[in-house]
Amino acid sequence: MTAPTQSVAVLGAGDHIGAAIVRKFAAQGFAVHAGRRNGDKLAPLLGGTVTGRSLDAREPDDVAAFLAEAETIAPLALVIFNVGANVQFPLLDTTDRVFRKVWEMACFAGFVTVREAARIMAPRGAGKIFVTGATAGLRGNPGYSAFAAAKAGLRAMAQSAARELWPQGLHVAHLVIDAGVDTAWVRQRVIERIGAEALAAQPDLLMPPEAVAEAYWALYSQPSAAWTFEQEIRPYGETW
Amino acid sequence: MTAPTQSVAVLGAGDHIGAAIVRKFAAQGFAVHAGRRNGDKLAPLLGGTVTGRSLDAREPDDVAAFLAEAETIAPLALVIFNVGANVQFPLLDTTDRVFRKVWEMACFAGFVTVREAARIMAPRGAGKIFVTGATAGLRGNPGYSAFAAAKAGLRAMAQSAARELWPQGLHVAHLVIDAGVDTAWVRQRVIERIGAEALAAQPDLLMPPEAVAEAYWALYSQPSAAWTFEQEIRPYGETW
Amino acid sequence: MTAPTQSVAVLGAGDHIGAAIVRKFAAQGFAVHAGRRNGDKLAPLLGGTVTGRSLDAREPDDVAAFLAEAETIAPLALVIFNVGANVQFPLLDTTDRVFRKVWEMACFAGFVTVREAARIMAPRGAGKIFVTGATAGLRGNPGYSAFAAAKAGLRAMAQSAARELWPQGLHVAHLVIDAGVDTAWVRQRVIERIGAEALAAQPDLLMPPEAVAEAYWALYSQPSAAWTFEQEIRPYGETW
Amino acid sequence: MTAPTQSVAVLGAGDHIGAAIVRKFAAQGFAVHAGRRNGDKLAPLLGGTVTGRSLDAREPDDVAAFLAEAETIAPLALVIFNVGANVQFPLLDTTDRVFRKVWEMACFAGFVTVREAARIMAPRGAGKIFVTGATAGLRGNPGYSAFAAAKAGLRAMAQSAARELWPQGLHVAHLVIDAGVDTAWVRQRVIERIGAEALAAQPDLLMPPEAVAEAYWALYSQPSAAWTFEQEIRPYGETW
Repeated sequence: MTAPTQSVAVLGAGDHIGAAIVRKFAAQGFAVHAGRRNGDKLAPLLGGTVTGRSLDAREPDDVAAFLAEAETIAPLALVIFNVGANVQFPLLDTTDRVFRKVWEMACFAGFVTVREAARIMAPRGAGKIFVTGATAGLRGNPGYSAFAAAKAGLRAMAQSAARELWPQGLHVAHLVIDAGVDTAWVRQRVIERIGAEALAAQPDLLMPPEAVAEAYWALYSQPSAAWTFEQEIRPYGETW
Repeated sequence: MTAPTQSVAVLGAGDHIGAAIVRKFAAQGFAVHAGRRNGDKLAPLLGGTVTGRSLDAREPDDVAAFLAEAETIAPLALVIFNVGANVQFPLLDTTDRVFRKVWEMACFAGFVTVREAARIMAPRGAGKIFVTGATAGLRGNPGYSAFAAAKAGLRAMAQSAARELWPQGLHVAHLVIDAGVDTAWVRQRVIERIGAEALAAQPDLLMPPEAVAEAYWALYSQPSAAWTFEQEIRPYGETW
Repeated sequence: MTAPTQSVAVLGAGDHIGAAIVRKFAAQGFAVHAGRRNGDKLAPLLGGTVTGRSLDAREPDDVAAFLAEAETIAPLALVIFNVGANVQFPLLDTTDRVFRKVWEMACFAGFVTVREAARIMAPRGAGKIFVTGATAGLRGNPGYSAFAAAKAGLRAMAQSAARELWPQGLHVAHLVIDAGVDTAWVRQRVIERIGAEALAAQPDLLMPPEAVAEAYWALYSQPSAAWTFEQEIRPYGETW
Repeated sequence: MTAPTQSVAVLGAGDHIGAAIVRKFAAQGFAVHAGRRNGDKLAPLLGGTVTGRSLDAREPDDVAAFLAEAETIAPLALVIFNVGANVQFPLLDTTDRVFRKVWEMACFAGFVTVREAARIMAPRGAGKIFVTGATAGLRGNPGYSAFAAAKAGLRAMAQSAARELWPQGLHVAHLVIDAGVDTAWVRQRVIERIGAEALAAQPDLLMPPEAVAEAYWALYSQPSAAWTFEQEIRPYGETW
């Protein structure tokens, strides 16, 4: 096996979507550098061409250092910002602290990631920067003022960056996951709502993390003559 | 002249739009409480039923106190959040500080204002909360990543709040000003672009602040059977 | 009483919204010319400054003649296209005939109306042309392929026309009614869904036709320095 | 070489995008049935697993027959509606005939195609139906009232159909091509605008038809746990 000639940095390499992305790009032959708040939970992913460490994506210096590490391993071909921050509170119960923290995680950290990735990629006029969005970024639902504000900010920042960076050869994209992703926690909530039998009868109702990774791989594979900025994905059985 | 029986609080009572709003609602018989960063510049507005003071809308305690003052003068019928924060920088030149400050002014302060206004109004099931939006809240243009992220966050927060608060009788709305407002500074930039003669030939190309105040008055006057959440206004000659 | 110096033409002057619009603008001192498919049902509206007749809005010659009649009474200040065509069918049960007919009523007739109104108004560089839209024009719900296609077409045509005609001084606007309008038929359906008591407890859940007429009046009253193209209205209690 | 076990029907198999789609899916091992108005121009595509004939997509019986032919060759896995109808006229110069004809080609024919494809696919709970959209379907530009109305209608119909058919296992999607596609005619217009040298320096400024075919292939390859309804593609250098 030859050493990877390109690297991918994944910020927000959690147990589900993040892990699936790491595995997908490692399997495609990239060196993958994975960061998440609790770096010790990265253990199952590490080894082979996968490296990783604890990362606080809200800290600009830490983000810059993290991307520099990936670049040192092999030139950065792709950076994926996948930090989540889903919270739900009635407006009157949304504290200043929550509103600010959700924004720092979902929007500010995303801005810093896009900017620092662009700083590395712009001089060579090539590279891809993808951010994980949510339906909340397109529509403010009741009870989600903090989350919607953060995700809408992330989306707008990404759009602004895309229109600025595409002509320089950098593919910025926003993947909107309009579904519950199949985790133990989400699965339990769906069972509470529709029952275990109904869920068993619809195996595709939840989105497996691997499907998100495939969507990112498809975006990565687009020729520069036909790039997509925004793409929504949802399971066939999802109501929208 | 009888004393006003209802008050209006204007956060971001600047020289142009804010001042026009203050004058319009005072003329309609409301007590108006006006806040802006440099309270000494409020002098031309004060007197009669208009009060005001320096206000840092990014400080939750200050916002709460400001609204409480208005409520003390007369029950709050309307709160308008009109704080601006328009900046333009290429992505790579957008510092952490700028991105954060623009968000604090345009989004976080708006959230705090809506929440604190709702805290006063929700118990009586009546009241109106309007926020001044910008085209950047709907579309991230190149060079505006900070401003677009903040304004899109403001819009999403307002939408979430509207869908939560309307059924409780509170009218939350988002007015999108898709134009240059007629100030000395904007006028100069337009003249540089199209020339003084072209501007003189199109007196409506810039939006007079009074037109924004009229739009707010029209929103205020809507019956509860036909409320609008979002409304864009622009001069007839504006390209869109 | 002096004779009206301006006229308003209402195409689709049905029993509810259309009638309310006719009454509102007549009360404001305009000569109003009202058209609907069954002209004999116009009787309760006629008299004073209101005239009317049977009109097939799908027939371009009839539309042109109808507008010319209004112009003869007094110069046309406003044309409102209010023809409805709401149908619901599963896709597989939507016949060619239904799809075509709904389009002819809701989209083609609207196009003809806007064009013929513009033909009269453009030479004098002033006039207003408003069209009644529906939520279906913004979003294709299941079971509404024909209606959504027609209303989305109407909206796109109106937007294209607005961007072409505004700089010529003609205010084209699209009013989106996102609610059930209070008619005997709609009222009965809501009672079936939530019960008579629940409806009685929420008098504003349905939109009275007069509220739509007020919204049109507010649009009509906008200064040319702050026009709106699209405006959604819904009752405070509506879910959206 | 084994005989194809699945077929693809392409309606609107023109010289550029349509031809590229035909070639791509034939290369992937499908039997492809191609239809266009002038069937004699299909000659370069025919042979191997590609069949074709003249087709008037505005004729429901012809569309149904065309799809039945494909189904006879091999079970229909995918139907692509790719009929174009781009015209540009000022509103006042848009005749009834043009407005109607553009709608019949771009919207009505699309509706018939989706419905007839669903009629074949729904009983087996599997199949894909893709339609080619345009930016005009999302935004009515000045001078494009007929085209925008038709494309917006197509989009709304497709969305309504998608939300109705996805839960039945049918993937309906809308691909938005936000670019000039590289044809001799488009190339000439771009050269007139920016010059031959500027175009030569940006080989990706125009979208090669093959890139659209690749985008359709990527949509076709999506797992049912992560389907996309709408996807915009444009070259990296395109302004948006």
